[in-house]
Amino acid sequence: MRVVAALGGNALLRRGQPMTAENQRANVAVAARALAPIALAHDLILTHGNGPQVGLLALQNAAYHPDELYPLDILDAETEGMIGYLLEQELGNLLPLDRRLATLLTQIRVDPRDPAFDNPTKPIGPIYNREAADRLAAEKGWRMAPDGASFRRVVPSPQPLEIVELGVIESLARAGVLVVCAGGGGIPVAEQADGSFAGVEAVIDKDFAGALLATALHADAFLMLTDVDAVYADWDTPSSWPIRRASPDTLAERAFAAGSMGPKVEAACRFVRAGGGFAAIGSLADAGAMLREEAGTIVAKSAVLEWGTAPLLGAAAG
Amino acid sequence: MRVVAALGGNALLRRGQPMTAENQRANVAVAARALAPIALAHDLILTHGNGPQVGLLALQNAAYHPDELYPLDILDAETEGMIGYLLEQELGNLLPLDRRLATLLTQIRVDPRDPAFDNPTKPIGPIYNREAADRLAAEKGWRMAPDGASFRRVVPSPQPLEIVELGVIESLARAGVLVVCAGGGGIPVAEQADGSFAGVEAVIDKDFAGALLATALHADAFLMLTDVDAVYADWDTPSSWPIRRASPDTLAERAFAAGSMGPKVEAACRFVRAGGGFAAIGSLADAGAMLREEAGTIVAKSAVLEWGTAPLLGAAAG
Repeated sequence: MRVVAALGGNALLRRGQPMTAENQRANVAVAARALAPIALAHDLILTHGNGPQVGLLALQNAAYHPDELYPLDILDAETEGMIGYLLEQELGNLLPLDRRLATLLTQIRVDPRDPAFDNPTKPIGPIYNREAADRLAAEKGWRMAPDGASFRRVVPSPQPLEIVELGVIESLARAGVLVVCAGGGGIPVAEQADGSFAGVEAVIDKDFAGALLATALHADAFLMLTDVDAVYADWDTPSSWPIRRASPDTLAERAFAAGSMGPKVEAACRFVRAGGGFAAIGSLADAGAMLREEAGTIVAKSAVLEWGTAPLLGAAAG
Repeated sequence: MRVVAALGGNALLRRGQPMTAENQRANVAVAARALAPIALAHDLILTHGNGPQVGLLALQNAAYHPDELYPLDILDAETEGMIGYLLEQELGNLLPLDRRLATLLTQIRVDPRDPAFDNPTKPIGPIYNREAADRLAAEKGWRMAPDGASFRRVVPSPQPLEIVELGVIESLARAGVLVVCAGGGGIPVAEQADGSFAGVEAVIDKDFAGALLATALHADAFLMLTDVDAVYADWDTPSSWPIRRASPDTLAERAFAAGSMGPKVEAACRFVRAGGGFAAIGSLADAGAMLREEAGTIVAKSAVLEWGTAPLLGAAAG
């Protein structure tokens, strides 16, 4: 089976945890233990989020030289290096010596006319007071939005259209190489007036990037691994209940939280509607069971709606 | 022809230049214009230094959280992402749309018993006063060495033994993919007591890593591209004169500056002695002419010593 697995950024650096190298490596090691059995039995292509990490790099950058900030595309590339290296090393340590692994820098093309560019919604980087926010908006043309009593920069989240390195990823995957790629939703690039490509100040949703990757690679399964055991209907209400199986059409009738489960459900539906085998959303520890369709929320084309048993412990966010 | 080219870190961020994203991109664009004609006519595998960039990340890290410093292997991985992305994008913009490019995270195995570990010599990261230097030495077990009136951390520079991702690099190169890899000398990793691999706090000389890469890939030519037009005999003396061609044996009779040309000459000799075609050391702008053996210093097995004409302008360091 060809499996594309997407690791949430929060699986790599838990909410509230100090952002140290030791914590990241320990979390990556946990993820590697969950993924190694899948890698042993299947062709695995691994992608991951980078929210906490790109935020950390932006903070480090601002602390050292607030007037020489690096653009998001370069920070994204740095996090693809950092996280990809840790994943490749920890997974490699659990696999036979002759299993080849590769971490590929990945650019993803977006449309410069994507309506998201008129409506930046994704907060990134440090928090500023009003004075600093106004100055940065004037100096750099950044869009700033309130965040509590402070302000943060917001950037667009355009749709991913094409994975620039897809041909290379495909040929490596076909040769049985475990490929880590499209980290952080990929580095967003757009065609310029002169036909060249350049990075853009945007963040691609990593679940949408994962769905594009899984679709383009004709994956049999697309796993989204997070810190919640399933998609819940009516999350945060007394009638909240886990969904075990559903079709895209059934899911389309319901609303899910825009910040977290919404994009995952949408990504699962995109993959399945584009002809993919099945998608599964659930917790990292259940990855193996999800691939057997025994855990998480399974999204498949003609699945009949099936509810889960009582919600598990530890479900922390919808 | 299969060509391995190594770009000096200073070709990407010139001495004294502010370390901004704009300057890096502009320098990478200059490098891409010098390399694109080679990539059009040959199979090109590209590697690069990361001295200024890893120093910048260490400074950013220390400015934000001096007590939560990331280890060198992770910073190396971040610079492989940052520089690799810029190189791949700028080169891709100058090549036909159907030419495939890939930037690969690259780990290089070193021997944990390498004598370099007893004698750290490579200064990295920020400058400290004596008090901070003593505290860091006690807290983290770092070796600190005087740097003028201040102190800097010094790390070992062990010999590169094996490129972990070599099989992947080889299969991509064979398929005509332009591969960017082994940036910054590669991420140094060593086998632990339990047989697993882990990153080590060390810096592999990027020219030695390049020589290993060129040798392992059976390259026809190994170009080391820097900001000096040739290797000079008796550098910094009135009799200083450029060497046009030489054999490894002839070069072995002379001494070259340990900080800059010494490792390049040694790397060229290693490649040629291991059966490689020829190595060339010279300035980035001459890359094409070096490949035709018409510029730079050419090192080949049975070359007869040949002196250059009058030294060119702009030779800034030996």
